[in-house]
Amino acid sequence: MQLDKNAIENLESRYRAALINSVSGFKPANLIGTANPQGETNLAVMSSVVHLGSHPPLLAMVVRPGGDERHTLANLLASGEYTINHINSDIYRQAHQTAARYPAKVSEFNATGLHEQWLEGFSAPFVAQAEVKMAMQLRQHMPLEINGTHLVIGEIIHLELPGNAVRRDGSLNLPAAGTVALSGLDEYLTAAALARLSYAKPDLPLREISEESE
Amino acid sequence: MQLDKNAIENLESRYRAALINSVSGFKPANLIGTANPQGETNLAVMSSVVHLGSHPPLLAMVVRPGGDERHTLANLLASGEYTINHINSDIYRQAHQTAARYPAKVSEFNATGLHEQWLEGFSAPFVAQAEVKMAMQLRQHMPLEINGTHLVIGEIIHLELPGNAVRRDGSLNLPAAGTVALSGLDEYLTAAALARLSYAKPDLPLREISEESE
Repeated sequence: MQLDKNAIENLESRYRAALINSVSGFKPANLIGTANPQGETNLAVMSSVVHLGSHPPLLAMVVRPGGDERHTLANLLASGEYTINHINSDIYRQAHQTAARYPAKVSEFNATGLHEQWLEGFSAPFVAQAEVKMAMQLRQHMPLEINGTHLVIGEIIHLELPGNAVRRDGSLNLPAAGTVALSGLDEYLTAAALARLSYAKPDLPLREISEESE
Repeated sequence: MQLDKNAIENLESRYRAALINSVSGFKPANLIGTANPQGETNLAVMSSVVHLGSHPPLLAMVVRPGGDERHTLANLLASGEYTINHINSDIYRQAHQTAARYPAKVSEFNATGLHEQWLEGFSAPFVAQAEVKMAMQLRQHMPLEINGTHLVIGEIIHLELPGNAVRRDGSLNLPAAGTVALSGLDEYLTAAALARLSYAKPDLPLREISEESE
């Protein structure tokens, strides 16, 4: 199946949205926790978190100014703080349900049965049922004029991890942490390792890194 | 396991890189194809492609100015064109091998056994063995001062897909396309669907979307 620029432009709009949301490949599945100045909490699924750098530890995400993500953006810009929580296979249905348009006064936590967890001195709520949780401090905010989305860059200032999923070399075994992936707008997936591959060198065959040899 | 800002700062640098590269969750696994003005081709694994919008169809990616990604950035800035090719389970080893530091005159295509595929009138090469391939036109380039990385935004102007992996609603069945995910710096994974979930509404239980009911 081949589509040129005109064919893509002429697709029915929901079909195009489903297709173009799928073509980047697998996406991370995260819940972003925020609170407004009155302490009212908000929770939203975000599939756009991307690694920016390890030192300092920076993650970026693309936030849409409309719909469910509007409150997330307003809250994190006001407070400078937000949390990133991995969606796992026990909570992906509750996570997806946070996208429903609840009345302004209803927190997605209460509505979906996800529980708030708080860190002393930090204004944004974690998801208690998540295994991997990060407290983020806003570092930079760039509106992207090309289509009205926003790039939000934050630094990880606190990290909670399931100890049994952290390998000896520091890498996280995401399937062991129960973390799921997202595809397109609505598909949740579990993953299984094919292999970890050694650092590539021109004249050496790749080696598989086993859990023992790390 | 809990790490505060100081504990993260004090991690051994390779350990921190392995950990922080894992905590964003699953990442898309793509090969970026470019050519320099002399037509010499380059191929690099990139795990930072992110959906920006569907209309126009825009994808962003974070590119590092050093190492293997330096040539990708120089080539796409000079030509304004690049390709994004999904890594699948048949080619993930060749894909990983493209990261080796070959001499400047050696194309990663020849070195790894991946084959070039060309589109009439387009200057960047596709990976013939990829099932999902996109021709990208550079739309915006923003150096990110916070850590010296670059945000590259491109528009999809040509799309090749395996017809049997495109569902009736336009969404792509990534496992059916053989597409793999990445975790951290070196782990490749296959994924299997848990469920597709219906559009969330406040007072309705979520429904699973089956292949038949789309």
